[in-house]
Amino acid sequence: MGINLTNFLSSKSKNKRMMEFQDLDHINGVSISTVCANLYENTRDDLVMFYFRDGANHASVYTQSKIISENIKWNLDNKAKKIFSLLVNARNANCFTGRQGYKSLEKIAEMIAEKLTEKQKVDEDIPKKIKPKDVIFGCTGTIGETFPEEKIKNKISELVSKFKYTQNKYIWMKAALGIMTTDTQPKMAMEECEIGSSPIKIFGIAKGSGMIQPNMATTLGYIFTDAEIPNDILKKLLKKNITTTFNAITCDGDTSTNDMVTIFSTGKSKHPKINSINDIKLKDFDISLNRVLLNLAKRVVADGEGASKFIEIVVKGCRSENDAKKIAFSIANSNLVKTAIAGEDPNWGRIIMAIGKAGITINLEKLSIKFGNIIIVQSGKISPNYNEQDASEYMKNDTIEILVDISSGSKSFTVCTMDLTKKYVDINADYRS
Amino acid sequence: MGINLTNFLSSKSKNKRMMEFQDLDHINGVSISTVCANLYENTRDDLVMFYFRDGANHASVYTQSKIISENIKWNLDNKAKKIFSLLVNARNANCFTGRQGYKSLEKIAEMIAEKLTEKQKVDEDIPKKIKPKDVIFGCTGTIGETFPEEKIKNKISELVSKFKYTQNKYIWMKAALGIMTTDTQPKMAMEECEIGSSPIKIFGIAKGSGMIQPNMATTLGYIFTDAEIPNDILKKLLKKNITTTFNAITCDGDTSTNDMVTIFSTGKSKHPKINSINDIKLKDFDISLNRVLLNLAKRVVADGEGASKFIEIVVKGCRSENDAKKIAFSIANSNLVKTAIAGEDPNWGRIIMAIGKAGITINLEKLSIKFGNIIIVQSGKISPNYNEQDASEYMKNDTIEILVDISSGSKSFTVCTMDLTKKYVDINADYRS
Repeated sequence: MGINLTNFLSSKSKNKRMMEFQDLDHINGVSISTVCANLYENTRDDLVMFYFRDGANHASVYTQSKIISENIKWNLDNKAKKIFSLLVNARNANCFTGRQGYKSLEKIAEMIAEKLTEKQKVDEDIPKKIKPKDVIFGCTGTIGETFPEEKIKNKISELVSKFKYTQNKYIWMKAALGIMTTDTQPKMAMEECEIGSSPIKIFGIAKGSGMIQPNMATTLGYIFTDAEIPNDILKKLLKKNITTTFNAITCDGDTSTNDMVTIFSTGKSKHPKINSINDIKLKDFDISLNRVLLNLAKRVVADGEGASKFIEIVVKGCRSENDAKKIAFSIANSNLVKTAIAGEDPNWGRIIMAIGKAGITINLEKLSIKFGNIIIVQSGKISPNYNEQDASEYMKNDTIEILVDISSGSKSFTVCTMDLTKKYVDINADYRS
Repeated sequence: MGINLTNFLSSKSKNKRMMEFQDLDHINGVSISTVCANLYENTRDDLVMFYFRDGANHASVYTQSKIISENIKWNLDNKAKKIFSLLVNARNANCFTGRQGYKSLEKIAEMIAEKLTEKQKVDEDIPKKIKPKDVIFGCTGTIGETFPEEKIKNKISELVSKFKYTQNKYIWMKAALGIMTTDTQPKMAMEECEIGSSPIKIFGIAKGSGMIQPNMATTLGYIFTDAEIPNDILKKLLKKNITTTFNAITCDGDTSTNDMVTIFSTGKSKHPKINSINDIKLKDFDISLNRVLLNLAKRVVADGEGASKFIEIVVKGCRSENDAKKIAFSIANSNLVKTAIAGEDPNWGRIIMAIGKAGITINLEKLSIKFGNIIIVQSGKISPNYNEQDASEYMKNDTIEILVDISSGSKSFTVCTMDLTKKYVDINADYRS
């Protein structure tokens, strides 16, 4: 992993702790436990449980693939108003597993509900009865293999017994590690903000490294806040902020059957009530949520399979945001652009190619292209000051910024991706062995 | 290059000479010459001229990219009824070269017209005056570099002086070699057929290895026939047959700014006149043209950058051909599918993923997937007879056939592609040096 995360995690955040790994501590109403269920047949933790002792409001965005995993089906079928638990497993996607895969989730949810109801009786003054539909699932791993129901059921008691009332940075790190597949680094992010004058926390973890082309939600991302926000407003906030974060990244142009981003709101922070997404008191929360999502999304790209360089593609001056998005993704998903960057070759002709194939009519005489601060093309001509030596030098950076100005409008879109290296081929030619 | 071309050039052709390289000989009315114009700064031939002494009817399909090269602009601007010369250069795409690139072609065309008019005075009883607009151009190579007008002009006299009346297999091979860029093998194909009872030849050469996602025409392909077919019927024949040949292949999902397939008809074979594309006498020609185009298109894929395996993806049972095409290309352009095949891993879960992301609603319970003759998924379930050992064995072949049956209609589409290897990254990370 050659990418230095601090390069792109710029200081735009007001959070002083925006470091390589932020220290996530406690969010009131969230407990976490992790175990090794032997899904990988080694000693890593591969099963992570979240427990919301008073339930949590929630909203999710899911993959737009026409083939979806059994856990996504479960989550869509079981829309409890409050969620009490999220269970995430690695190694098995529970996709194309048919009735067996779905039935397994049903049995596991029953067991989780039973164990958590027992726990409520011990811990709570007014114990709640938790039902199977109060549990949702995240699954990631290989498609088409039998879902390991028994291995998972064998670990539910242990997971429940391990919950602590207060969480610290180590358990968040363990959770972020436990949901990884081909990831080489855990992904965590946090922001602190205010609603009214009450302090609010927003924590998030994510996983994702391959099969990443955003289409609604991408990869697995879980966001936790102690704010009290109703489900419908959570949904609007999530959809709005996904567009420019998880839906603005691509590693390989492939879309998973299992993509899922969920936000949980425990309501433990007492703040003025929020009745509408337009409530001015939500503004700080809205911005902070975007930061957490963008931070996580960028971490996913930076850890993209085989990545040696982080690439930010800014397309501006378009007639519509959709035009800008199409051009940005056409560049970001071009294997020829990505391999040139891997080779530190400022082969901007391939940017021209990718702009052309995006299918948007542009006035070539207005086109400008910059790599970082280096002007390559200006008003449709190679800049008289362009010097390939400078560009070659620039390409040695960990983070490459490509700026395309169409100069025909005011809309823009930014996409993050990474280069295509031999290591990507290595990882994916040999994923299952 | 691990791909054995004879594997996929199956014996569907009636032409007995369907071997690794067919022997193209003489097509009446076509002359060829090649030189080294030092465009690559070594001794390979990189400039190829075709001369039609009595002119040729012609039709072309061009790239659908919104950014097109200067030679494509020239060809579109200069629509002479008969073409007398085609000049193809490698190394420089003449794209994003602006007015200079276009002006250079103008000067070169003037020089070619002048030299060929002189040649006509010497050779022909009734010499014709050849005009600049009777010349068209094919360019391929790097985008955005100054077009080497002088180097090319310096070689025009030599090219014209080298024309021989009769062509043989060596000059066709030299032409196919002269238009190559990252190709490792020349691409030639031929068929013999009849119009009425007159024997007709169809010869073709092509180049292409990277930046290949068909969109109308792909890469450079030039077809020559001694039949006499009017321009409008040539155009219809070419468009119709491009769909299932050059437009049904992909190497890397990228579309060139310079794609061009042109057919030239010298009219030297005396056969009953053709007045309509529906003329029954055209049927044999139509089938043979498709074979030549498909043969060339498959050779382009088999020589795809870094390819170690040739992949044929057949999607059938769809409601529309467009649905089948979308699913087939979604599979063919998935880096995850292509790397799995490079790794000889029968990771069919990635086929499921690629079907899902194509955006076509399908009934999963009707889905079947085969690798060659090995049934993996049948009616939405893993086949009880499926044995991964067999599939792993199958993946060792040079040619991999993936059959997806949606079982919801009668339409199908076949796409050819190749695997994604570390060699692809090598080639493209270091293309210009």
